Amino acid sequence: MEPELIQHLRESLPASSRLRIGLGDDAAILDWQDRDDLVVTTDLISDEVDFLLGEVDPRRVGRKALAINLSDLAAMAAEPIAAVVTLLLPHKPPHGTTLELATKLYEGMLPLAEEFDCVVAGGDTNSWNGPLAISVTAFGSCGDTAPLLRRGASPGDVILVTGQLGGSILGHHFDFTPRVREARRLAETGLARVGMDISDGLLLDLSRLLKESDAAAAVDLPAIPIADAARQLAVQSGQTPLEHALADGEDFELLLVAPPTAAETLVADGLLGTQVTAIGSILAGEGIWADHVGGQRLKPQGFLHQ
Amino acid sequence: MEPELIQHLRESLPASSRLRIGLGDDAAILDWQDRDDLVVTTDLISDEVDFLLGEVDPRRVGRKALAINLSDLAAMAAEPIAAVVTLLLPHKPPHGTTLELATKLYEGMLPLAEEFDCVVAGGDTNSWNGPLAISVTAFGSCGDTAPLLRRGASPGDVILVTGQLGGSILGHHFDFTPRVREARRLAETGLARVGMDISDGLLLDLSRLLKESDAAAAVDLPAIPIADAARQLAVQSGQTPLEHALADGEDFELLLVAPPTAAETLVADGLLGTQVTAIGSILAGEGIWADHVGGQRLKPQGFLHQ
Repeated sequence: MEPELIQHLRESLPASSRLRIGLGDDAAILDWQDRDDLVVTTDLISDEVDFLLGEVDPRRVGRKALAINLSDLAAMAAEPIAAVVTLLLPHKPPHGTTLELATKLYEGMLPLAEEFDCVVAGGDTNSWNGPLAISVTAFGSCGDTAPLLRRGASPGDVILVTGQLGGSILGHHFDFTPRVREARRLAETGLARVGMDISDGLLLDLSRLLKESDAAAAVDLPAIPIADAARQLAVQSGQTPLEHALADGEDFELLLVAPPTAAETLVADGLLGTQVTAIGSILAGEGIWADHVGGQRLKPQGFLHQ
Repeated sequence: MEPELIQHLRESLPASSRLRIGLGDDAAILDWQDRDDLVVTTDLISDEVDFLLGEVDPRRVGRKALAINLSDLAAMAAEPIAAVVTLLLPHKPPHGTTLELATKLYEGMLPLAEEFDCVVAGGDTNSWNGPLAISVTAFGSCGDTAPLLRRGASPGDVILVTGQLGGSILGHHFDFTPRVREARRLAETGLARVGMDISDGLLLDLSRLLKESDAAAAVDLPAIPIADAARQLAVQSGQTPLEHALADGEDFELLLVAPPTAAETLVADGLLGTQVTAIGSILAGEGIWADHVGGQRLKPQGFLHQ
């Protein structure tokens, strides 16, 4: 790591009692007392694939790199504790110097880290002739609560989603708030133990959950909560708002599965502090069906298909 | 991650009782019972900077990506427990397909992971139009022993190194064995609590340790253990074998600081199971000096300089 950046980080990273040894040594040492689990996730975003560096404020890119990892911790109902950051910086960024770029990436990341009490415990900074890539590894713990897993959905269970879906590309994919608080509240109620975050599109992610649970699903299409952005995008895309809600990536909402009475409580009680909608049910067999088996079969990509 | 690669990994990754939840969910869950610390390090290598993908077996690249992180855990005297791997794969590798490249990278990594009982707990695999980059984040624990830190060296302490230095570029930088076992044995003896790994060259890394310890050093140049590779390289490089030993990067040996009697024991007793050489002593003040303060001052880059 460049000495200027280490210096800058040392000055800008908030102190934390959980960080026994931080920047300036070969590794960080975190206090893991009273925890018996380590939940780990890692996710990378890169220029031209996940964003266009020439067209976006790098602070939003830095924020997103952390937010998608916090969303993965939320997907396990884990409490975020710390993260490490690896930057692969271009020698010649579209705007400003390499050091300025690194600084802005961190400026975008740190307020989000602080919001979720997640220590940035250092990282690795490299520069090269290639484009920008940012890899974050985040650590958390489920404490005394059960994790939210993809396996375990049973026929008769209800499928739920938080928030509204579709059209994320209009801005939500940078500015979303990872559903960490909602997932922790859910874990504390014990009402659902099966779920994940929606990162690649509702139908595609649902198909992954069904694969791990060895089950099928009926989706109640009129019940899908459609985001305003999906309607806005549909005006010019040639797709319907519903198609956007079913297939667009990067909603970063929670997809949950719960037994019927627990599902009713979650929908009615506002326990999670956000909108929760029942959108279907788990069936035996395989596939995702509109309304019932033998109805229209929905392809995991989300395009309507017989 | 591509479904073929997930499938391949599921089949090839050895099971571990420490991995409560592994591949196939949003994050991994590791058993961290009876541990109250989490030692974390992350390090990335990339094509054209750290290796030339067109000229090297990708298995050696995969092995190196993990080995440098295990070396950082050794630098803290931590026991490796798990690692996550992020691949950024070129759409068109110099040889074979992207999937074949990913497979070979893991083939090089897994035997080393197994040798050090380090669980590969999943990761993130991406492909793009840029060159290959591999980021590994490794986790460990010091258990009941004290970590090896860069701070804490005191005037009068002896500076030690394991193994022999220099010429790593001739092959050692791919094939080195991270000094994990030596560091753990050291931690169990309690004979040294200050140290790091030599990744960027003896003098440069020593200068970093001195900065954290707020101290100076006298280095006994004739005592430096010079690797055969450094002599071999000197034949054509125009530098002396000693200059290579002082300044070449990627030795991945341990640089240790211990009180005199502890240092004598470490050199004489073979406790670490490998060669340990006393190469100088810690002084008050600043700078690295050949033999004594007021002698020749050695620049952190390792070039001899008045």
